[in-house]
Amino acid sequence: MTTDMTTDTHDQRNNNFEIAHVTVLGTGVLGSEIAYQTAYSGFAVTAYDISEEILEAARTRFEALATRFENEVNGAAGGRAQAALTRIRYSSDLKDAAHDADLVIEAVPEILDLKRDVYQHLGQVAPERTIFATNSSTLLPSQMADSSGRPDRFLAMHFANKIWIHNTAEIVGDPCTDPAVYQTVVAFARRIGMEPIELHKEQPGYVLNALAVPWMGAALKLLIRDIADPETIDKTWRIDKEAPEGPFQNMDRVGLKTVYDIYAASDDEELRAAANYVKQHYIDKGKLGQPTGEGFYRYPAAT
Amino acid sequence: MTTDMTTDTHDQRNNNFEIAHVTVLGTGVLGSEIAYQTAYSGFAVTAYDISEEILEAARTRFEALATRFENEVNGAAGGRAQAALTRIRYSSDLKDAAHDADLVIEAVPEILDLKRDVYQHLGQVAPERTIFATNSSTLLPSQMADSSGRPDRFLAMHFANKIWIHNTAEIVGDPCTDPAVYQTVVAFARRIGMEPIELHKEQPGYVLNALAVPWMGAALKLLIRDIADPETIDKTWRIDKEAPEGPFQNMDRVGLKTVYDIYAASDDEELRAAANYVKQHYIDKGKLGQPTGEGFYRYPAAT
Repeated sequence: MTTDMTTDTHDQRNNNFEIAHVTVLGTGVLGSEIAYQTAYSGFAVTAYDISEEILEAARTRFEALATRFENEVNGAAGGRAQAALTRIRYSSDLKDAAHDADLVIEAVPEILDLKRDVYQHLGQVAPERTIFATNSSTLLPSQMADSSGRPDRFLAMHFANKIWIHNTAEIVGDPCTDPAVYQTVVAFARRIGMEPIELHKEQPGYVLNALAVPWMGAALKLLIRDIADPETIDKTWRIDKEAPEGPFQNMDRVGLKTVYDIYAASDDEELRAAANYVKQHYIDKGKLGQPTGEGFYRYPAAT
Repeated sequence: MTTDMTTDTHDQRNNNFEIAHVTVLGTGVLGSEIAYQTAYSGFAVTAYDISEEILEAARTRFEALATRFENEVNGAAGGRAQAALTRIRYSSDLKDAAHDADLVIEAVPEILDLKRDVYQHLGQVAPERTIFATNSSTLLPSQMADSSGRPDRFLAMHFANKIWIHNTAEIVGDPCTDPAVYQTVVAFARRIGMEPIELHKEQPGYVLNALAVPWMGAALKLLIRDIADPETIDKTWRIDKEAPEGPFQNMDRVGLKTVYDIYAASDDEELRAAANYVKQHYIDKGKLGQPTGEGFYRYPAAT
């Protein structure tokens, strides 16, 4: 980590928390991206997951990210992307992983009880000063803060996939969150190259999904009403909004299992029907979206 | 009009209607764009409006469009954009305007009774063969078809603003529409450079507004709940979707009076409250969106 980052006087004026060591819990797709982006930005990072085997897979993921950064991120070639790998240490022991963390970013599966268990344990083993940030997109900080034993140092920082391009960090406290903690995390987000999206209060779906969920839902309704096909619906949106993607392309990127989960839980009967339509016509046929090569669209191999 | 357009054998195979003369009713912003785009594509166009004074203003609009095409449309400079102006004739007499029309595109104000009156009159003065297409975005063909006296030759063809860039034509019949008429209009849309968006059946808002209305509504809810400000909400969308505009930028472009009209009529109490918020904080202060220089954002003069 470079000296100018640890001694950023602007950050120090705004808060009492210095962030130098960051631990990321969970090395799935987004967890890996968060850990790598943080290491790439000069921080000492500990990647935690539940087994050495999973951590070995994470190592491969980080190496692939380094290659991707070299190809896609300005300035990443010539050693910088590779150097980030040396700033990541691995741990499958939560106490060890958290022992010197200034900030823990949690990206474990979106199961409330699991997250609460993690925070209960983490609250006991992490230093007093450590700030906890959940990357949850579907749960709210107030559903987990108390389990951490430190609700004043608890908030949500929600990242988007392809963090180096979609560089938003939605930052949401609950009423207990210390404003200095909130501002520390806002400043940290900037230091790892994110645009901090400051939410004034809790909102299901935060900003991004509060916009995207009704938009994708409207598209699904047009589909199950047989108004038009996905290609036509997407084309209409792309042309009028001069946007690269329509809603079905977006759903393929999000993954159709996630799409199903979102709408199967809707209050709107038609959206629940749409979720079942997606299950029957796509998920049950192994069409899970872009990563599997087929969803609403077909994708060439290895995209 | 060039010969290759009038003798397009592909079109002739698919239908029994030949389109050579097109009359556009209404010379407002979108009506003018439709008429000019049609003339630019080689058709003989009659622009109809209710007074010579309005038609004089339309003439200025068409000239401005020719200049705009010269600057923005490939191949329009060097005479082609100007030549389109010579293919437009003007009429404030409906019988005269319609007397040789193969297709009438109606773009009069979005008031059902007004449109029905226009179609009742038009049905009496237009030739038997003439197809009627409404550009309505908020009304459905089945609400007007019977007033025309020729429901089999009646459908909706909905254009978007900045027709030369946002070149969608949403085409919607009602159960009475003759399939050959529908296909004639689809082929015509292609011949004037549009992407025909074929809807299998009627849908309020067609495709585009069925997607955009829930998306803008979700953004308004975030605003009136004080979750975040318009700039932050738009930024979040732009970054994640790699899109040029967020929902508030889009609303400024649509115009805030239209936004008010959409949500003031909503079944959703919170959206009606959002409509009132827009009225109080923007419309009542003369902030009507991009054309007036200010809406959710401020715009430099003369945009």
